[in-house]
Amino acid sequence: MVKKIRNIALIGGTHGNEMTGVYLIKKFQKYPHLIERSSLKILTFLANPRAIEARQRYIETDLNRCFSREALDEPETFFYEQILAKNIDQKIRDHQTDLIIDLHSTTSQMGLTIIICDGHPFHFQLVAYLTSLNPNIKVLRYRYAQENLLLRSLTELGFAIEVGAVAQGVLDAALFQQTEQLIYHLLDGLEKYNQGDDFNGCKSLTLYQVIERIDYPRTGEDITAMIHPDLQFKDYHPLHPGDPLFVTFEGETIHYQGDCTVYPVFINEAAYYEKGIAMCFTEKQEIIL
Amino acid sequence: MVKKIRNIALIGGTHGNEMTGVYLIKKFQKYPHLIERSSLKILTFLANPRAIEARQRYIETDLNRCFSREALDEPETFFYEQILAKNIDQKIRDHQTDLIIDLHSTTSQMGLTIIICDGHPFHFQLVAYLTSLNPNIKVLRYRYAQENLLLRSLTELGFAIEVGAVAQGVLDAALFQQTEQLIYHLLDGLEKYNQGDDFNGCKSLTLYQVIERIDYPRTGEDITAMIHPDLQFKDYHPLHPGDPLFVTFEGETIHYQGDCTVYPVFINEAAYYEKGIAMCFTEKQEIIL
Repeated sequence: MVKKIRNIALIGGTHGNEMTGVYLIKKFQKYPHLIERSSLKILTFLANPRAIEARQRYIETDLNRCFSREALDEPETFFYEQILAKNIDQKIRDHQTDLIIDLHSTTSQMGLTIIICDGHPFHFQLVAYLTSLNPNIKVLRYRYAQENLLLRSLTELGFAIEVGAVAQGVLDAALFQQTEQLIYHLLDGLEKYNQGDDFNGCKSLTLYQVIERIDYPRTGEDITAMIHPDLQFKDYHPLHPGDPLFVTFEGETIHYQGDCTVYPVFINEAAYYEKGIAMCFTEKQEIIL
Repeated sequence: MVKKIRNIALIGGTHGNEMTGVYLIKKFQKYPHLIERSSLKILTFLANPRAIEARQRYIETDLNRCFSREALDEPETFFYEQILAKNIDQKIRDHQTDLIIDLHSTTSQMGLTIIICDGHPFHFQLVAYLTSLNPNIKVLRYRYAQENLLLRSLTELGFAIEVGAVAQGVLDAALFQQTEQLIYHLLDGLEKYNQGDDFNGCKSLTLYQVIERIDYPRTGEDITAMIHPDLQFKDYHPLHPGDPLFVTFEGETIHYQGDCTVYPVFINEAAYYEKGIAMCFTEKQEIIL
């Protein structure tokens, strides 16, 4: 097990149009007692205030792809968000942060998802504890390329909380309240851990492992098909060989040609059109703890 | 009745992140025979290509509020969209446009909505015909302030087609196909009209008249409450005195204090946070034709 978790960074607005996290951070800054826990020192901040003001994901480049060590150590930075990333990195170091919680939302129907990067045993145990409190929580393991590291990768321990479906620029009250509850559970869990509880009651965990990123059919840069209506909002549902995947603008269905059942997530995420991602295929795994 | 309708302008991408209209226009430009009708001359274009490329509503100011005659005649224009509006105005004149169809989408659950500005008898008869073909279509009458006139106001006759719920930057295939069908019905209806049919079979029309715009509760500029979960996605449903309207970030419900039942629309439209509109109240009317 890891040492005690003392210093937490709880962050919203890494993407300026993901309002759930922005307004939760504003709430916690207004009412700090809501997130006070005796063993924790919690730093809250809004990562990209200028993007939040503009109600855009980012101003010049996606902040949440600017955190590779190489990029942070590069002396010649060009984009607004690259400079911002360096400041955030320093803030995270100054706080001697043990664990980062980064709040996101998505236009995909991902409910309450906790995204972990790796198979660190502490991550498994903590999220297993959280899913025991709320079985609707889904756990996604998503390794990003080293050259595009995320904010939460600045520390060994960390999660993104990804909630949806909610449109960019929109506050959905039900999702706001569910995310708030999840954060309280998470902080309570860290507090229990610091008091010696190692979540031994949790023996297994269902986890969705990203195995492939699927782009839209395209001619040049332009997409030639849309997510099939049967697949829209079906994140975490099984997709079987032969099931509808896309429908072209002409109305022709494109079927899933793979050999095995997968569980798509990030289906029709607005911000991923420009990244060449129509959805991510995952494999469903049972992890024995 | 009006004279024959010859010249149509069919427009998408007036807001660059409303993808349904953008991709329908691209489809019609690729397959022009789909919208060819013997009595009609149809001009199609994307109104704000630069905003479409940026996947944003607008670059500098909302194009669809730049069409007052005063603004168009103002020699000193400042914003990109103000200049663009003048070009579009000229294009509409050059085509000797009789009727404008402007394609929009919304994050509100407005299904297939046709928005008319006024009570022109031709508008009533045509939309009554369209609702007879598809009873799911809703008709909204929304008068905008003279200083903020819309693109579709450039001609005496015109509609906006407003479809949702769909997130900004997202293509929803089902809505795309339903909107496409509605456009074919609309063009077929204009063709019938030009051939002498005055839609006499349609005797009445259900119409939602915007009577009030409701802002979020705010302290200064900052909102202090969200759309109540019971109201989210309930566009066109009756809202009775005492029903939940908002919920504050602290969890307190704010109830509707009015005296009469209203039918809210544009509930939680992403683009309207900055305009100070949480929803529009409408009155439900039966129009006898």
